[in-house]
Amino acid sequence: MARKPVEKPAQTISGMPAGDPKHAARATRSAGRKMRSSLLDGASRLFKERGLAGTSISDIAAAADAFPSQITYYFRTKEALFVEAACRDMLYVAREAERAAFEADTPRDYTRALVESVTATDSVAFFAEALTLTRRRQDLAPLVERTIERLHGEGLRAYAGQIERHGWNTLRDPDATSRRFWAVAIGVMVEGYAMGRSSDALRREMLRVLGEQAATKPAGDNARLRLVGERDISRSSSSEGETSS
Amino acid sequence: MARKPVEKPAQTISGMPAGDPKHAARATRSAGRKMRSSLLDGASRLFKERGLAGTSISDIAAAADAFPSQITYYFRTKEALFVEAACRDMLYVAREAERAAFEADTPRDYTRALVESVTATDSVAFFAEALTLTRRRQDLAPLVERTIERLHGEGLRAYAGQIERHGWNTLRDPDATSRRFWAVAIGVMVEGYAMGRSSDALRREMLRVLGEQAATKPAGDNARLRLVGERDISRSSSSEGETSS
Repeated sequence: MARKPVEKPAQTISGMPAGDPKHAARATRSAGRKMRSSLLDGASRLFKERGLAGTSISDIAAAADAFPSQITYYFRTKEALFVEAACRDMLYVAREAERAAFEADTPRDYTRALVESVTATDSVAFFAEALTLTRRRQDLAPLVERTIERLHGEGLRAYAGQIERHGWNTLRDPDATSRRFWAVAIGVMVEGYAMGRSSDALRREMLRVLGEQAATKPAGDNARLRLVGERDISRSSSSEGETSS
Repeated sequence: MARKPVEKPAQTISGMPAGDPKHAARATRSAGRKMRSSLLDGASRLFKERGLAGTSISDIAAAADAFPSQITYYFRTKEALFVEAACRDMLYVAREAERAAFEADTPRDYTRALVESVTATDSVAFFAEALTLTRRRQDLAPLVERTIERLHGEGLRAYAGQIERHGWNTLRDPDATSRRFWAVAIGVMVEGYAMGRSSDALRREMLRVLGEQAATKPAGDNARLRLVGERDISRSSSSEGETSS
C-alpha cells in the first residue's frame, strides 16, 4: 500500500528555546509520542464501542482533538491504527491480569484472578477483531506476531514465577498452559460476544473451559498430578517449525 | 434493518403440470431450496477466499448463476448470508471431524483425528469471522446461538459415545471437553490465520494447547486419572444462568 503524502504535524510546543536544536528535537519527539498515545487512546475507546466499520478517521481525530492528517501521518491507515490500538490494549490487559493474580496463594485463586481480570474488559474481543482483520491484511501481521510473542513470553514468565514462588505442581508444561489460557480466552470471548453474554457469564464459561492448571500439594501425592501420556503429545507438537510429525 | 422490497424469484421449473397446485408448490419449494443451497455454496467459497469486505452480492450472484435480487430475497443482506454460510460450514466441518475420528481406538488418536480434520479447512476461521461480525449485528445472533448449541450438543454426544464404546476414562466432564475443544479451535485458528500459519502448524499448535482429554486404561489406576480439585471448578461454573458464584 502506498504511503499517502501528508504534511508533518504542526509544531505545537510553545515557549521552546529556538537556539537549542537538541532540546527542540527532544521536545518534538516527546510531543509526538504524546500525540500518538492520545490518538491510540481515542481510537481504542471508539473502536471498542463501534467496531472498525462504525468508526471513521475523523471521529478518532475529533476524539483526540487532532487533525485527520495526523492519524495518517502516525499510522497510515485506519486498519493499522485499529490493529496497533488492539495490540496495545491486549498487552495492557495481560499485565493488569498478572498484577491482579500476583497475590494468589493457590493455583485456583490464581486462575480465577486472571480470568476475572480478563473477562472484565472487552480488550480480548477487540484483539480478536484485530486478528480477524489481519488475516486479510498480512502487511499488519508483524505487529500482531510481536504482540502474541510478548503475550506468551510474559504469560510464561509470570506463571513459571508463580509456580516457583509457591512450589505448585504444574499439570502441563508452563508454556502450553500460557498458550492455552490465551487461546481459550480468545475462543470464549469471540463466541461469547457474538451471543451477547455478560462478563459474568464469560468468566464462568472461561473457568469451566480452562479447568485446573496446577495443583497446590506437590509432595507425596505425585501420581494424582500427572496426566497420562500428556508429555508425548506436547513434545511432538512443541515446535512451531515445519518438521512433520 | 428494513427489508428491501424485491420481486419473488422467477419460476424456473419447466414442464410443471399447471393443473396440480400441490405438485407445483412442492416443485417450487424444492427449486427454492436448491437455489438457496447453491447461493450458500458460492457465498461460502467466495467469502472464505476474499472475506466479507472483499466480496459483493453481485460476485456471489454471478458465482451461483443467479440474480442479486435472489440473494436479497433469500437472505436479505450480505452480512446475513455471510453468517448463515459460515454457520452451515462450521456444522459441516464438525460432522466431518466426528466421522474422521469415529474409528479411533485411543483417546489420543481420537483427538488427533479431530484436530487434523478441523485444521485442514478454513471453516473455523470463517466461523470466527462470522462471530466477530455478529457482535456488531445482534440481529444475526439467534442463528449463531443455535449453531453453537448444536456444535456443543453434537460434540458432547459424539465424545460421550466414544467414551462409552471404548470404556475410556475421561479426565473432565465431557461437556466441558467439547466446549474446550471448540474454544481452543477458534482461539488457535484466529491467532494462527492472522499470522499466516500453515495448516500443519495449526494442527501442532492445537494439539499442544489441547493436551490430553481422556486416558485409555480405566482399571486399577484411577488415581492417575483424576485432576485434583477439577470437579469443584467445573461445578461452580457449569451453569450458564445468572446465578452468582
